[in-house]
Amino acid sequence: MLLDGNRIVLGTCYYPEHWPESMWREDLARMLANGIEVIRIAEFAWNKTEPEEGVFTYDFFDSFLDLCEEAGMKVIFCTPTATPPAWLTHKYPEALNCDLSGVPYRHGLRRHYNYNSPIYRSLSARITQKLAEHYAQRPCIIGWQLDNEFNCEVNVFYSEADSAAFRVFLKDKYQTLEKLNAAWGTAFWNQDYTDWAQVYVPRQTVGGRSNPHQELDYLRFISHSARSFAKLQSDILRPYLKPGDFITTNGLFGHLDNHAMTAESLDFLTYDSYPNFAYCMDTDHSDPTALYDRKWSRNLSETRAASPHFGIMEQQSGANGWINRMEAPTPRPGQMTLWTMQSIAHGADFVSYFRWRTCTMGTEIYWHGILDYSSRDNRRLRELKQIHAMTEKLAPVAGAAFKAEVAILRDYDNVWDAELDVWHGRVEEASQKALFAAAQRTHTPVDFVYADHASLEQLAKYKVIFCPHATIMTPACADMLTQYAERGGTVVFGCRTAYKNATGQCVMDRLPGLIAPLTGADIPEYSFIAPDAGRVTIDWDGTELEAAVFADLVEPVDGVREAVYTSDYYAGSGALVSKAVGKGRAYYYGTAFTEEAARVFMEKLGVASPWADVMELPESCELAVREKDGQAYAFVLNYKKDCAKVVVKRECADVLNGGTVCGEVVVPGYGVMVIKA
Amino acid sequence: MLLDGNRIVLGTCYYPEHWPESMWREDLARMLANGIEVIRIAEFAWNKTEPEEGVFTYDFFDSFLDLCEEAGMKVIFCTPTATPPAWLTHKYPEALNCDLSGVPYRHGLRRHYNYNSPIYRSLSARITQKLAEHYAQRPCIIGWQLDNEFNCEVNVFYSEADSAAFRVFLKDKYQTLEKLNAAWGTAFWNQDYTDWAQVYVPRQTVGGRSNPHQELDYLRFISHSARSFAKLQSDILRPYLKPGDFITTNGLFGHLDNHAMTAESLDFLTYDSYPNFAYCMDTDHSDPTALYDRKWSRNLSETRAASPHFGIMEQQSGANGWINRMEAPTPRPGQMTLWTMQSIAHGADFVSYFRWRTCTMGTEIYWHGILDYSSRDNRRLRELKQIHAMTEKLAPVAGAAFKAEVAILRDYDNVWDAELDVWHGRVEEASQKALFAAAQRTHTPVDFVYADHASLEQLAKYKVIFCPHATIMTPACADMLTQYAERGGTVVFGCRTAYKNATGQCVMDRLPGLIAPLTGADIPEYSFIAPDAGRVTIDWDGTELEAAVFADLVEPVDGVREAVYTSDYYAGSGALVSKAVGKGRAYYYGTAFTEEAARVFMEKLGVASPWADVMELPESCELAVREKDGQAYAFVLNYKKDCAKVVVKRECADVLNGGTVCGEVVVPGYGVMVIKA
Amino acid sequence: MLLDGNRIVLGTCYYPEHWPESMWREDLARMLANGIEVIRIAEFAWNKTEPEEGVFTYDFFDSFLDLCEEAGMKVIFCTPTATPPAWLTHKYPEALNCDLSGVPYRHGLRRHYNYNSPIYRSLSARITQKLAEHYAQRPCIIGWQLDNEFNCEVNVFYSEADSAAFRVFLKDKYQTLEKLNAAWGTAFWNQDYTDWAQVYVPRQTVGGRSNPHQELDYLRFISHSARSFAKLQSDILRPYLKPGDFITTNGLFGHLDNHAMTAESLDFLTYDSYPNFAYCMDTDHSDPTALYDRKWSRNLSETRAASPHFGIMEQQSGANGWINRMEAPTPRPGQMTLWTMQSIAHGADFVSYFRWRTCTMGTEIYWHGILDYSSRDNRRLRELKQIHAMTEKLAPVAGAAFKAEVAILRDYDNVWDAELDVWHGRVEEASQKALFAAAQRTHTPVDFVYADHASLEQLAKYKVIFCPHATIMTPACADMLTQYAERGGTVVFGCRTAYKNATGQCVMDRLPGLIAPLTGADIPEYSFIAPDAGRVTIDWDGTELEAAVFADLVEPVDGVREAVYTSDYYAGSGALVSKAVGKGRAYYYGTAFTEEAARVFMEKLGVASPWADVMELPESCELAVREKDGQAYAFVLNYKKDCAKVVVKRECADVLNGGTVCGEVVVPGYGVMVIKA
Repeated sequence: MLLDGNRIVLGTCYYPEHWPESMWREDLARMLANGIEVIRIAEFAWNKTEPEEGVFTYDFFDSFLDLCEEAGMKVIFCTPTATPPAWLTHKYPEALNCDLSGVPYRHGLRRHYNYNSPIYRSLSARITQKLAEHYAQRPCIIGWQLDNEFNCEVNVFYSEADSAAFRVFLKDKYQTLEKLNAAWGTAFWNQDYTDWAQVYVPRQTVGGRSNPHQELDYLRFISHSARSFAKLQSDILRPYLKPGDFITTNGLFGHLDNHAMTAESLDFLTYDSYPNFAYCMDTDHSDPTALYDRKWSRNLSETRAASPHFGIMEQQSGANGWINRMEAPTPRPGQMTLWTMQSIAHGADFVSYFRWRTCTMGTEIYWHGILDYSSRDNRRLRELKQIHAMTEKLAPVAGAAFKAEVAILRDYDNVWDAELDVWHGRVEEASQKALFAAAQRTHTPVDFVYADHASLEQLAKYKVIFCPHATIMTPACADMLTQYAERGGTVVFGCRTAYKNATGQCVMDRLPGLIAPLTGADIPEYSFIAPDAGRVTIDWDGTELEAAVFADLVEPVDGVREAVYTSDYYAGSGALVSKAVGKGRAYYYGTAFTEEAARVFMEKLGVASPWADVMELPESCELAVREKDGQAYAFVLNYKKDCAKVVVKRECADVLNGGTVCGEVVVPGYGVMVIKA
Repeated sequence: MLLDGNRIVLGTCYYPEHWPESMWREDLARMLANGIEVIRIAEFAWNKTEPEEGVFTYDFFDSFLDLCEEAGMKVIFCTPTATPPAWLTHKYPEALNCDLSGVPYRHGLRRHYNYNSPIYRSLSARITQKLAEHYAQRPCIIGWQLDNEFNCEVNVFYSEADSAAFRVFLKDKYQTLEKLNAAWGTAFWNQDYTDWAQVYVPRQTVGGRSNPHQELDYLRFISHSARSFAKLQSDILRPYLKPGDFITTNGLFGHLDNHAMTAESLDFLTYDSYPNFAYCMDTDHSDPTALYDRKWSRNLSETRAASPHFGIMEQQSGANGWINRMEAPTPRPGQMTLWTMQSIAHGADFVSYFRWRTCTMGTEIYWHGILDYSSRDNRRLRELKQIHAMTEKLAPVAGAAFKAEVAILRDYDNVWDAELDVWHGRVEEASQKALFAAAQRTHTPVDFVYADHASLEQLAKYKVIFCPHATIMTPACADMLTQYAERGGTVVFGCRTAYKNATGQCVMDRLPGLIAPLTGADIPEYSFIAPDAGRVTIDWDGTELEAAVFADLVEPVDGVREAVYTSDYYAGSGALVSKAVGKGRAYYYGTAFTEEAARVFMEKLGVASPWADVMELPESCELAVREKDGQAYAFVLNYKKDCAKVVVKRECADVLNGGTVCGEVVVPGYGVMVIKA
Repeated sequence: MLLDGNRIVLGTCYYPEHWPESMWREDLARMLANGIEVIRIAEFAWNKTEPEEGVFTYDFFDSFLDLCEEAGMKVIFCTPTATPPAWLTHKYPEALNCDLSGVPYRHGLRRHYNYNSPIYRSLSARITQKLAEHYAQRPCIIGWQLDNEFNCEVNVFYSEADSAAFRVFLKDKYQTLEKLNAAWGTAFWNQDYTDWAQVYVPRQTVGGRSNPHQELDYLRFISHSARSFAKLQSDILRPYLKPGDFITTNGLFGHLDNHAMTAESLDFLTYDSYPNFAYCMDTDHSDPTALYDRKWSRNLSETRAASPHFGIMEQQSGANGWINRMEAPTPRPGQMTLWTMQSIAHGADFVSYFRWRTCTMGTEIYWHGILDYSSRDNRRLRELKQIHAMTEKLAPVAGAAFKAEVAILRDYDNVWDAELDVWHGRVEEASQKALFAAAQRTHTPVDFVYADHASLEQLAKYKVIFCPHATIMTPACADMLTQYAERGGTVVFGCRTAYKNATGQCVMDRLPGLIAPLTGADIPEYSFIAPDAGRVTIDWDGTELEAAVFADLVEPVDGVREAVYTSDYYAGSGALVSKAVGKGRAYYYGTAFTEEAARVFMEKLGVASPWADVMELPESCELAVREKDGQAYAFVLNYKKDCAKVVVKRECADVLNGGTVCGEVVVPGYGVMVIKA
């Protein structure tokens, strides 16, 4: 039913355990009357099935599911492991995660467990099995969610069980301490290990940080641990599922290889989309170039990268806010619709609102659902009804693929390295922001592609690939990109590419290391741009660009010098080198991207604004395109409260309003237009 | 002698244990010569009476009290429990308070104990008993201070003893875990408790905070613990007191119901007043509307609320400063006088300066007393002598009540909820600041009244009551306010009133919940004002107000729409609804107060500037009025260094200077005028 | 060979354990070819000699030293105690330092040990002995470095072993608890100790800080502990050294009396000079008056104070940066030369670059050496070669003393008190910055002199001594300064001088306490300058100065009133008092120094710009002068990227370029000129 390529389906999150049983029936009827066909339940309800250790009761959800079946509501059921019961953590404190100092995180919030505790894994396996045995055959159930938001709240783990599991992980990886010592560069600062018992997850040090190669392996280990915990549950659930039922979980959170987890444990991934985080009271609003809620398109593209078919498990439908933080305003009239369309435009064919009723107790009393505390009809419920009407008109879009000619190449090792390594982090942050913003403002749809999970065939779909700062470069990746270029692709590297190997150690070759042959470049000198350097400029055939954060002085070996620095002591040194490779070309750009530089690259490489012949849009509107059976559907999303004027250059069908549009069209504030392009 | 309604009495704090015995006699004589009639002693001197566990010696204070009696100095003696001896906490570390992680706070500062440790309560009870037995009959002693500044330094407690006592407190309150689970909303996030042993005071969690209903009960528990510790001492002391001797303690600090503590353990409360905190080096001085030292009038009003008769136990007489923080300048010439008059104007008939000599050792070497390290005569000692002359002229004011027609209604549950709940906190902070500032600048005396300790009769004294954001509303409070209005009072509520019940859970009724009948209002929609919303305006009969922080869209049910929003998507929705109730009226204002809005309310409701027919004052002067036997005494306090011009509109007696004043009168910088009005 | 007064010698830091043995020979040859004559090795290589507890192997460094001897490279060998092996801290966690809460700092960085652990001292002694026995007679070795950067990373210690050693230290100092209680002022806040077991190093308290007199003793104890650990090693090494071989260590770090350590354990001190810390990405660059890398001259002067002959063990030769912090740019062309000359100008006759090759692994991959990862020839290697040529020309300067007529008097007790005491700290920080900047910009060379390590003869070399805020004054220091003045010297005190004694307790005398007789001054009143006071001015014979931070109102007793305050309520009170003393004069200035005030003092006292008759320099250049056998060598250092014009007023020999200079000379950006003056 979900993601079947035929319809866009709406859902919501419901918590029968929060409301008197007497309300259930009416709630279900009211949802259905407003277009909600699926509900997610039970992700925080361990006690409803196992109120004491080893005592299992099923009455509660049996009653509820009976009503669902009676009403015709479909259900996504969850494993409850995100919130261990008080009896569990009180009896087994070893199941708790700890901070870096070893102090446990206690009962009182959520996600306070660690993935590696043997007892927690055992009790989690048992409750999963019990739920599957009892509920999996219920006709109303269409799928399962594992846990809730793996790696949310905290994505570092320092319990004793984590150190024990880390040792096992490392033994699997390195076999011997000699190899571990070599990979971690323990010759530096006399850190050699002579016994596996000396090896721990990072602990408190005088500088707050540990060996960086250990830390890189540690982030890989966290991902491994979360995936292993997901797979533990998925492997138990799978045999009990009715044909067609799915397993998913909701993201996206850090220190987790979502691609691998999806491949090994899920049918598809879901995303929890809260664009109003952009307007939290404690958010910095001083950046005039910020994209605010439009930035969530980046997250949706990341989700699509890991799971080409995906849904939204939690779509914002009210104000955000915990009792102590994350205060955000109520979505303005139209924004709930806009954000739903944003999700659909980026590929989601299932959108489930968080949540039906706003909770009246606990930490999340300000995390509003569709209904307020009183559950009376309100403006957002009316908006839901309109959205439902829109999604019915969008049925032809279901199953359509997102269409992009440009990709931004990433991989998990580099994502994590950028987090650990402040040099890498600064260039990465600047360029990721710039590339995304330039793509948005030039109406150039982009995909994220993960090199560690991509095939040459996947790459070959794109005309241009930006690989901004793959500090860690592997021979496999360098080979794949070389072949991509040879077949006619254009690949653009930014500064600092390829000076590290997979351990995070620096290569002793001439830079840019493994991609030197591909780019024909050589980097005799490099530096952070000094805070007192002022504006450092580059001349690229008469176009002035500004160097950002870092300057590789890059010179051609068997490539071509395309641009030079024009200020500071860099003046006259090369800033951009390219090399023809087979039918394609590789570029090495010796700095991080500004938004302007990213735009210039897209324009010079001929991939900017691919729909310019169909439509002319103001920068303030996003363009996103899905395509199925040769038919493109172009979504125009207006994130501003003011109207936007769009010029449609040829007559196109208006999917939402019927009829056709041509010439100047006004998209209202927070409005959406979908045309067959 | 103190607070007898006949005289204003001056005192100081003296530490015989800091000085050679040879200095005592001269110090006492010099104090008396400068108008000091009372000294407080011994609040940090446990070791002087019990130098080792169970060994009691009385010689030290006996010698000192002999000298006091000889000199004619009166004494307030203290229980010494604020600073446990090293031998005690070394032997009984369980007496120590701990941080959230469970790490103890050690010997080396003060107030490092917890109120609930059985051994600390037992040893505290014993030293109190010993002191009472030995000293209570001394003729020079006129009263006792319990401990010193309960809940100063730290007002959260996380020791094992606190968890044990919390369980007892909760059992008393809820009887069963079922009721506790219901009150704490443990159905949310699967937090149900199945055994009392699972219940703790808040501990470290992944989000830094615990269940909010637990936390609200925890703050109530802290107050309960401090009160219980005070009462333990008071109950021991009381039987030993000479007739007329009093028990007090000094405040004000957080997480403590001062009303209840005063009622059950004290004869009256004292306040420690340090207005120069407003000028600390690390204070933000960027707010052009800040009231600085004048803000201390707010604290004095809070003290008066809890204890209509009160004194100042520590009145600033020199620069503040610990060795590591709280650096503030020396009071300027005149400020020590000004602040003393501020205290008296707000109701204090006893003012004791902190401290006679500045300490030469320990953490507080920069917390200056009247005398500097050398103890030579100085400018502040000369100022003291002048103050004494002034207080003698103010004898008729002694016992007079503070006079106000406007009250700001508060209650402890809402004070604590505003601390825990960031939505509540933001509106509360804005409105409290605005209402106080508007009252100050319009010369409208106000009282604070605590709904949880007030009777209808107390409320009836006021023409207008502002109840800005009583998020937690009880049926009793709603009833009392309804009766208040019915009898002719005007009550003004701000946004977010009454959406919670006493557990801190949100009501599932139409908002504003329990006060919907009283206000005739309905709130179909609400939101934080988004950071990008710009200035949100309201039109109230042609007067433009600015909405602050939050916007309830409020519509009349059986009330009247008084004002509407005029900007953003709120435009056209109601912003202020009123309803006639009996002889009075209730208002619901859908946002937080700006100072301008508060001023407009006071003016429109006819309570602004009640003494305008007697005096015309610049905004920079405070007006405070005390009344006794039908005679009003108006204090004009000039907080600026420049002269202020006051126009006295009818001939009035000048209490300090004798004679009468009429027409334009110049009050010098930091000067004070008191007239019979 | 080093510091022999005949030559300037260049060195580098080399890590044979980081590179394949096959690279060693070529590296050594290449160093020598570029002017490197000495290398430092082995400071982080404990495992290379003792890979398991009690198992010693010498092959690794034997092989390497064989190659050194073959190549003719001289070696500084290090004791390896800065980085304990994993096997050690795993087996003996008591060797670890802890944070204030008692949580250990673990393996994974460096310097995680405590100086007082008996087992760590024992194992450190043994490895030192083994290394000395085996290597000390090697001909290539010319000296030893103890550990590496004592008190770097962390300079507070809270392990159990530290508390145990602190008790021993205190018993030595005070003998009895009565004396300790008196010195620590435990009468304040009832802190008396009745058993030595109750005494600890500072621990967590509710205010974050402990008794300030205890804390002052604690900082003295840290210094004592580090010195004791250094001496433990030095005493073992010394008997094994070949004649002429030296012992040194590298600094400078806090909480360490470098004078005493040098005197008792070293032949001379070395400094690690990284001027590009001034340009770190996370440095505040908003201060327009900042001296940036020129400020390192202050550190070099401090090193010279502790060790008149000294070297640079680590001179910056590339970008700084740990993987997680301290990001700084690559030195610009010329800066490596400039900073080397800065070191030499201030007295260093040995300059060793950190490091030969940039490390490819571990925390310091961004702490660049001369060579980059690839080890190819680069710009910095070329610069080294030029520097070497320059140093050969500077051979006559070797052994020359730095020449200054002005001293800034300091002492360790006051350095530490300023760290603990925020009143002291604020005035000290302001005045130290101001005095150094004024001296730099007026081209007035200054020395630092430590009163606690100086003789009257040493003081007598200076015309003027600034003693800005010696809060703690001892009779010995007051006497020495009185004699200094009597013999003709001029001493200038700033506010707050001498109000404390050696315990850190305030004196009960009239201020300025022990220097009242010397200065003829009396301070009846004082205050921090209130944040709202605006600009507070002083008139000194028609020159307007601005008071900074603090205002002592200072009046003459038997001195002369030189300047008065002219604003705020201070107006008309004295701001500067002087008194003729013998052939000299003492000044008491009642506030902290601004740069302008410091300049005015230097000018009025006739010590500003002593080389003005030889040279006229722009403010942006530093002037530093060394003198030997009556010949002065004046170094002009241009810290700006733009050229500087210098006017040489008489014909002088140009040491670096040969020939003579006279008239206008252009010093290029980052350039250096050395003339015989």
